[in-house]
Amino acid sequence: MGPHPAVAAIRLAVRRVLTDILDDHGRTPGRPPHERTSSPLVLVACSGGADSMALASALAFEAPRLGVRAGGITVDHGLQAGSDLRAADVVVRLRELGLDPAESVAVTVGRETRVAHSASYRGGGGRRAGGPEAAARDARYAALDTAAERHGAAAVLLGHTRDDQAETVLLGLARGSGIRSLSGMAAVSGADGRYRRPFLQLDRQTARTACMVQSLPVWDDPHNADPAYTRSRLRHEGLPALEKALGKGVVEALARTAQLSRDDADALDAWAGRAEAGVRDADGRLECAALHALPPAVRRRVLRRAAIEAGAPAGSLFARHIEEVDRLITAWHGQGAINLPGRVVARRQGGRLVIRQG
Amino acid sequence: MGPHPAVAAIRLAVRRVLTDILDDHGRTPGRPPHERTSSPLVLVACSGGADSMALASALAFEAPRLGVRAGGITVDHGLQAGSDLRAADVVVRLRELGLDPAESVAVTVGRETRVAHSASYRGGGGRRAGGPEAAARDARYAALDTAAERHGAAAVLLGHTRDDQAETVLLGLARGSGIRSLSGMAAVSGADGRYRRPFLQLDRQTARTACMVQSLPVWDDPHNADPAYTRSRLRHEGLPALEKALGKGVVEALARTAQLSRDDADALDAWAGRAEAGVRDADGRLECAALHALPPAVRRRVLRRAAIEAGAPAGSLFARHIEEVDRLITAWHGQGAINLPGRVVARRQGGRLVIRQG
Repeated sequence: MGPHPAVAAIRLAVRRVLTDILDDHGRTPGRPPHERTSSPLVLVACSGGADSMALASALAFEAPRLGVRAGGITVDHGLQAGSDLRAADVVVRLRELGLDPAESVAVTVGRETRVAHSASYRGGGGRRAGGPEAAARDARYAALDTAAERHGAAAVLLGHTRDDQAETVLLGLARGSGIRSLSGMAAVSGADGRYRRPFLQLDRQTARTACMVQSLPVWDDPHNADPAYTRSRLRHEGLPALEKALGKGVVEALARTAQLSRDDADALDAWAGRAEAGVRDADGRLECAALHALPPAVRRRVLRRAAIEAGAPAGSLFARHIEEVDRLITAWHGQGAINLPGRVVARRQGGRLVIRQG
Repeated sequence: MGPHPAVAAIRLAVRRVLTDILDDHGRTPGRPPHERTSSPLVLVACSGGADSMALASALAFEAPRLGVRAGGITVDHGLQAGSDLRAADVVVRLRELGLDPAESVAVTVGRETRVAHSASYRGGGGRRAGGPEAAARDARYAALDTAAERHGAAAVLLGHTRDDQAETVLLGLARGSGIRSLSGMAAVSGADGRYRRPFLQLDRQTARTACMVQSLPVWDDPHNADPAYTRSRLRHEGLPALEKALGKGVVEALARTAQLSRDDADALDAWAGRAEAGVRDADGRLECAALHALPPAVRRRVLRRAAIEAGAPAGSLFARHIEEVDRLITAWHGQGAINLPGRVVARRQGGRLVIRQG
């Protein structure tokens, strides 16, 4: 008799990703031959919750069959009393699954951490979701990066499920900043594609069931049910109400929207990159007539790129800023300079659009 | 003392659209000179509800100041007892506002109507929202088309507000069929841009307030609060829950998403249109290698166009169909033919993708 369907599902998802990682690992041209043939190390980031415990169990099962070494990291955010004991407990569970290394990494969550590390882990498109969730996330990824480098890991697996993806799309929708912010989390992200999300097509219930039938104890982070957190409110109130109004397929529809939006945003970004060269004069200044001739979707992306290049922080540059700059092109009536974040100013001068700091 | 801010807002919105219509009217090259200089007729589609009553009042106020003739049409859907009396009552109100012509048009809402007229009024992207709402909508637009042609109207104004737009985006999101279905309603749509939506940037509350301060009686359609209707559930439960979770800016964010998505979808459709010529061989067959080289977002649109051209009905062609056809290009392992709606079959043959009926 084979494993329970939920266990089979989580293992298949992990097996596919490990196969990918092995392909990439074998092909990496810069890597010395002896490293290329050695067994790569794959880490799982594990909070002790159901999603990442299921992920850890599937990694522990599949890795040895594919000649992959498997380890686990748990991050102690230090935000609750006893979080260090909790982290130590997760390490014990990871070891019991056979993961090695298995370790806890303590981080300090603060405003500074958040600012210092924010750029690397988030898509360029959206407004920064501020607050404690963002700070904790940024500290967590910084710690995982460090751990991955210290152990020479080929990849770090993250337990985000399709339900998390649906929530992320809705959070992006609430920013109203366009399709990049609807594209959710990528299956592969980070430097050199370090982070992988094997469960992005799997629902949360499958992960929970897999833990239950494998008798894996799981820890429910009280933050996940705390209505002070936007994502928690979305999970427990917003999304269920949407499902009630629109039907049970909403989570799947949101996840599919993420994938389609990501591909669309990538294609349009590529177009804007090519278009940018064509709208600059010999001195590299943006020509208003050439900009005007571009499709609005492409023109706005060219303007956004130019603003960021001039020093505007991507995370503070909203759709309404770009709309205002766009009106210097499409609705010109002699209006004054537009102030953008990062002390960047956009003005129209003699048929040219000048975007610069100061 | 000027008018109440809400009244000023609805009038400004209508004035802008009327100015646009006058510009277009004066410029239309095919129109004989005497018609071009005559006063154009603009109709308002009015249910008697707050949004369209506010629109009718603003049209009645602005039209004479701009040399525009203003009329109103109300559609009697015949779905409730006494709907004819209700429609007659709306006509009286339209006349009291000074609109001429002001008339009621009775329609029969049925499955046949729905099918016959569906293609013209909906974006090509999405799954058909079936059921009584779609049938009523299609019958309504067919009647408005007929009335506009009979009166030689230059435009028909519709009272959809930013709140309606937000609901439409969420309905599109639930289909999970990509950014075209997120693009909501257009400010200008229909044959020759006949339909205009002056209130698309205005919130529902402004329209309601404008009716109240002008002492305009309004009729609340009981369907709007009937939980049997998807849109009604969304309006009264789904959207408020989302606002509670994500904050009050959700409606505005959804409306902005609609505009951005529409521009993005237009640009990508244009790209796919150009790309299609480049991926066909001398005999007009699709070359798999050339398709493979396109960005996924563009390739999927080329495949969708080809399927529709081969006879697949746009409204029944879902994202998952296109994904399956796409795998004939990106994940080819000798799989068989893919059946698409409308008896269209896609198969790979010797490096070519053949999509045809039968």
